[in-house]
Amino acid sequence: MAKEMTLLWGSGSPPCWRVMIVLEEKNLKGYNQKLFSFEKGEHKSSQVMEMNPRGQLPAFKHNNHVLNESYAACFYLESQYQSQGNKLIPECPAEKAMMYQRMFEANTLGQKTVDVIYYNWRVPEAERHDSALKRNKETLTAEIKLWEGYMQKASGPFVAGKNFSLADVMVFPSVAYLYRSGLCEERYPKLAAYYNSLKDRSSIKTSWPPTWLESPAQDLLKDI
Amino acid sequence: MAKEMTLLWGSGSPPCWRVMIVLEEKNLKGYNQKLFSFEKGEHKSSQVMEMNPRGQLPAFKHNNHVLNESYAACFYLESQYQSQGNKLIPECPAEKAMMYQRMFEANTLGQKTVDVIYYNWRVPEAERHDSALKRNKETLTAEIKLWEGYMQKASGPFVAGKNFSLADVMVFPSVAYLYRSGLCEERYPKLAAYYNSLKDRSSIKTSWPPTWLESPAQDLLKDI
Repeated sequence: MAKEMTLLWGSGSPPCWRVMIVLEEKNLKGYNQKLFSFEKGEHKSSQVMEMNPRGQLPAFKHNNHVLNESYAACFYLESQYQSQGNKLIPECPAEKAMMYQRMFEANTLGQKTVDVIYYNWRVPEAERHDSALKRNKETLTAEIKLWEGYMQKASGPFVAGKNFSLADVMVFPSVAYLYRSGLCEERYPKLAAYYNSLKDRSSIKTSWPPTWLESPAQDLLKDI
Repeated sequence: MAKEMTLLWGSGSPPCWRVMIVLEEKNLKGYNQKLFSFEKGEHKSSQVMEMNPRGQLPAFKHNNHVLNESYAACFYLESQYQSQGNKLIPECPAEKAMMYQRMFEANTLGQKTVDVIYYNWRVPEAERHDSALKRNKETLTAEIKLWEGYMQKASGPFVAGKNFSLADVMVFPSVAYLYRSGLCEERYPKLAAYYNSLKDRSSIKTSWPPTWLESPAQDLLKDI
């Protein structure tokens, strides 16, 4: 029982989801957790701000160790519980190199996605430009094509090859977010195959964003 | 001799500098390297694009393993050469947790710096707003204050505590970039003390951006 761990999270946030997937993969059950609503602005509540002064989710703590950055929490958990649950860093140098490269590229994919989906939310009305949103969409399209190419050339069913790894922990939630936001499966078939092959994995299914189960998918990315 | 490694880099880029610091710390000498000019747009040259399809520097390769993301290259090198040169991941769980947390927060510091310094370069003229640049400056100021507070409370001379670690590899170049861009040392004395205590460390001094030695510092951040 992981009673000495606390996770504050929001539904549908890829960074939160990553930490939850690792907790499942490492068999860390029974941690303290609390769901906050982004829509209601609860990520700026005092309870979150106390743990994470940027007012962002996840906020994660193990004993007195604060690990609010999703990559930090995932690396830390894998390092502290290496022999528990599934090993998330492959031994083979080639696969390990690929894991590191792709997991950090996932940041870029996530950022470019946010630049399109949250454009109106992040940019005040007086500063919005159709030309900027159009450029963001073109940038995201190029990025997704890059990932479709990666999946075409992949040496196994997972991002880094034959083993589920931290690369999948980082990449999968961002890919799921694309499809949740209306990305066309037929246009990016290899990425869709990856998405469909992993969505029923136990750690992922168990931690699936509850708000996604309750409401229909959106169509913000249908033209991408 | 690290002849099987190739680094394409640009002077003054924190991501490039990180990889160079780790190569020094791990005693990996004699790697193939080539300096490209951002000003001349050489990061979009075919030689870079072949290794890094996003046209970004660094582009780094060990044998056939491509590691273009600076965090990926640094993690990989530390993992492959654990017992060579300086150990960059501490054993102590508390220090390790702090290392992971701060190293990924460095991304946020870097992004907020770029949002101010490169505002005019990244945003087409017709889309620029004084209100946006003002907001970016306020956001960067709050971020730097957070880091000044971290350094006040630090349990040692380094970002994660008593040992130089991957957190310093990620954070130092971003902090140096702030001072290079005119941040006032007196206004953020703990951050300045950290900067001044590390700038003569051998791995850092050896890899200091050559263009910074040739031209005077800028004053873009003098009001921050």
